[in-house]
Amino acid sequence: MNTLAVTDGQVLRPDHSIERTDVLIDTDDGTIEALGEFDEPADEQLDATGGLVIPGLVNAHTHVAMTLFRGAADDKPLDAWLQEDIWPVEAELTGEDVRAGARLGIAEMIRSGTTAIADMYFFMPEVAAVVEEAGIRARLGHGCITVGKDDEAAHEDFEAGLEFAREYNNTADGRVKTLFTPHSLTTVDKQFYEEYIPKAHDAGIPVHIHANETTQEVEPLVDEYGKRPLEYADDLGILTEETFLAHGVHVDETERELLAERGTSVVHCPASNMKLASGMAPIQKLHDAGVTVALGTDGAGSNNDLDMFDEMRDAAMIGKLAEDDASAVPADAVIDMATKAGAETLGFDSGRLEEGANADLAVLDLDSLHLMPQHDLVSHLVYAARGSDVRHTVCDGQVLMEDRELQTLSADDVMAEASEHATELFARAE
Amino acid sequence: MNTLAVTDGQVLRPDHSIERTDVLIDTDDGTIEALGEFDEPADEQLDATGGLVIPGLVNAHTHVAMTLFRGAADDKPLDAWLQEDIWPVEAELTGEDVRAGARLGIAEMIRSGTTAIADMYFFMPEVAAVVEEAGIRARLGHGCITVGKDDEAAHEDFEAGLEFAREYNNTADGRVKTLFTPHSLTTVDKQFYEEYIPKAHDAGIPVHIHANETTQEVEPLVDEYGKRPLEYADDLGILTEETFLAHGVHVDETERELLAERGTSVVHCPASNMKLASGMAPIQKLHDAGVTVALGTDGAGSNNDLDMFDEMRDAAMIGKLAEDDASAVPADAVIDMATKAGAETLGFDSGRLEEGANADLAVLDLDSLHLMPQHDLVSHLVYAARGSDVRHTVCDGQVLMEDRELQTLSADDVMAEASEHATELFARAE
Repeated sequence: MNTLAVTDGQVLRPDHSIERTDVLIDTDDGTIEALGEFDEPADEQLDATGGLVIPGLVNAHTHVAMTLFRGAADDKPLDAWLQEDIWPVEAELTGEDVRAGARLGIAEMIRSGTTAIADMYFFMPEVAAVVEEAGIRARLGHGCITVGKDDEAAHEDFEAGLEFAREYNNTADGRVKTLFTPHSLTTVDKQFYEEYIPKAHDAGIPVHIHANETTQEVEPLVDEYGKRPLEYADDLGILTEETFLAHGVHVDETERELLAERGTSVVHCPASNMKLASGMAPIQKLHDAGVTVALGTDGAGSNNDLDMFDEMRDAAMIGKLAEDDASAVPADAVIDMATKAGAETLGFDSGRLEEGANADLAVLDLDSLHLMPQHDLVSHLVYAARGSDVRHTVCDGQVLMEDRELQTLSADDVMAEASEHATELFARAE
Repeated sequence: MNTLAVTDGQVLRPDHSIERTDVLIDTDDGTIEALGEFDEPADEQLDATGGLVIPGLVNAHTHVAMTLFRGAADDKPLDAWLQEDIWPVEAELTGEDVRAGARLGIAEMIRSGTTAIADMYFFMPEVAAVVEEAGIRARLGHGCITVGKDDEAAHEDFEAGLEFAREYNNTADGRVKTLFTPHSLTTVDKQFYEEYIPKAHDAGIPVHIHANETTQEVEPLVDEYGKRPLEYADDLGILTEETFLAHGVHVDETERELLAERGTSVVHCPASNMKLASGMAPIQKLHDAGVTVALGTDGAGSNNDLDMFDEMRDAAMIGKLAEDDASAVPADAVIDMATKAGAETLGFDSGRLEEGANADLAVLDLDSLHLMPQHDLVSHLVYAARGSDVRHTVCDGQVLMEDRELQTLSADDVMAEASEHATELFARAE
């Protein structure tokens, strides 16, 4: 057994206690071998002195290549933003652009302690290649849509989605798993759900869609079918334990109970929901109903960063506003959303620093002005820390960042490549 | 004339254009001498290559020594938080604690590009001493309250507030100016406003109070006087052009018009308002009414950081949610809140990079993954940058941070001192 020891840090345990202990990693299989003090020196050491060791954060909903759109169009509502700014440029996207954008986004996430993502976009083999190269863990799906397409083109799109999901599942030593990702309940014709959801289930591929993000995604379905969107989704067989829904902003009590009953998770994207004025998801109510809620940044076009520390803070903040109650969505619940619940949603045995779990972790530097004094490190993780406090990032037992230096990607190359692709992409779309 | 040149950066101008130019500072009087390219080398150089030069940020409402409370009590509403967690510990505060807390908070703010603050707290001579030592610019007021005090104690408190304001105004080479700061409309008896507001006006000291932060601060006044809080405040002569109000969450249309008419500014504290579930201030409506709105972090106890980049992002985000409109409170308006409007509110000739203005500025490092690509740097300032991107901070022509190294304070000493004081303070309050 080859080993890596993360030494001399304080370790955040699944019960939110914090323990001074080392973490011994079996680097052959990428799991945590043990926590404790060890007599034998490990093959490699990662110094966590003065630091806090936390599970690698899970970004359970993003469109990583959209880093290329960061700051290109702000201060617009979802519909106008998609139709006027995003879709015309996306029409010009190439696989090389997606690769450059994915490298940028994944590098940014490694630098801010994220080790697992769920990504829905186009040219997904490119994203899979970057995930493999960068060393993180991912659930990837080709986003399928029928709006604006004739029947043949829509079928091609859905077949491509299914083919990607089958071909790439369990690649990159198991770090890449796949998803079947129809875009949303209103941008995909009912017949395509009827045709393809059973195929995804048969192939054992989890379904991930946008749902109930804005009121415009609720009303048309209520008007047409006389049902709430998630009742409609349930009729189509979408709501299973493996399925997870992005956003879930406008979910009523019936829908929350339905989610709990089916074991379907929701991925909360607070920054995107605020920036696009989509609304405030009822996170405390979802928790109270027993729904698993993960956390995601959404794409950098509507956030505009991929820093899960921002997202944790936003989730706590907006969660309180939504309930008109400052005790709602407390810090420990938010940490669970970004770790345990995220990993559970994506189906990875990560998100917890325990023997046997995947060795996916981040080490934060605590020796900073904005993290003093240290009455409560759980509070600091949510309300005061930020991605730039992450010193080391480890995924699957491999060190992806050490002392803020990326190990699997070159930050300079990634930035230069992304800037060039963004400039050329937007020039083509002019 | 002794000079400092900030060289080779891109400079954010008051109209939000960005210009490649040097900034020449007269370090004798601490003002900007000129922008342009200069033949003569300056006495000192500050390298801004690859960086963005912005006005120093203005944190227009904080309680800086409350950094000692960071993370000590979260996830509680304002009333319970004050009464159960904050006030019992504040009763044990010493001047030395306040000095340690102020050093910590001001160091954190310099590190995140803030050069001017408005601070309301206790032991204010200690805060003034730290402002002088650290080199920032501040409006300081001793917070006065009558709730829980007998008449004599309340008078002592108000006299102390007035005395501090008179004695410390225009000290530290003009970098310290003062405020008269009764706590809020509901925690100060009417007769004290009647007695002391004229005295503050006579002394030429601006008034700064908390107002309309929660519905509990509105209803009692409506019940007792049959008026909205700001109508009540106006009857008391509080609303002038020099006065500024913290929060203004629950202000109705009549009150917004009254503020505009009187020229009274509001300091928006979005993070604190979210964390305490106080509500969403109608910032776009205040802007539309012509009210000057500045931005503040409030204390670190309810935020939990003093990073104005977080605050800018929060202001844009919550501003959209409050209006149910993604085009509300756009990035350029937010930058103005944190710079021009803040400086105007505090009565400092800062917040703009122009000839003759105070040389208060920050230089951001743009060469970062999360700031790529660079379609729009104004967007990045609000939606993607964070305090840790600040490379240099200059106030009054003096370099307070260079290449992330504090120049006037020792970060290590400040952290050690604050931790020690926080530990002892909370032990005393047990």
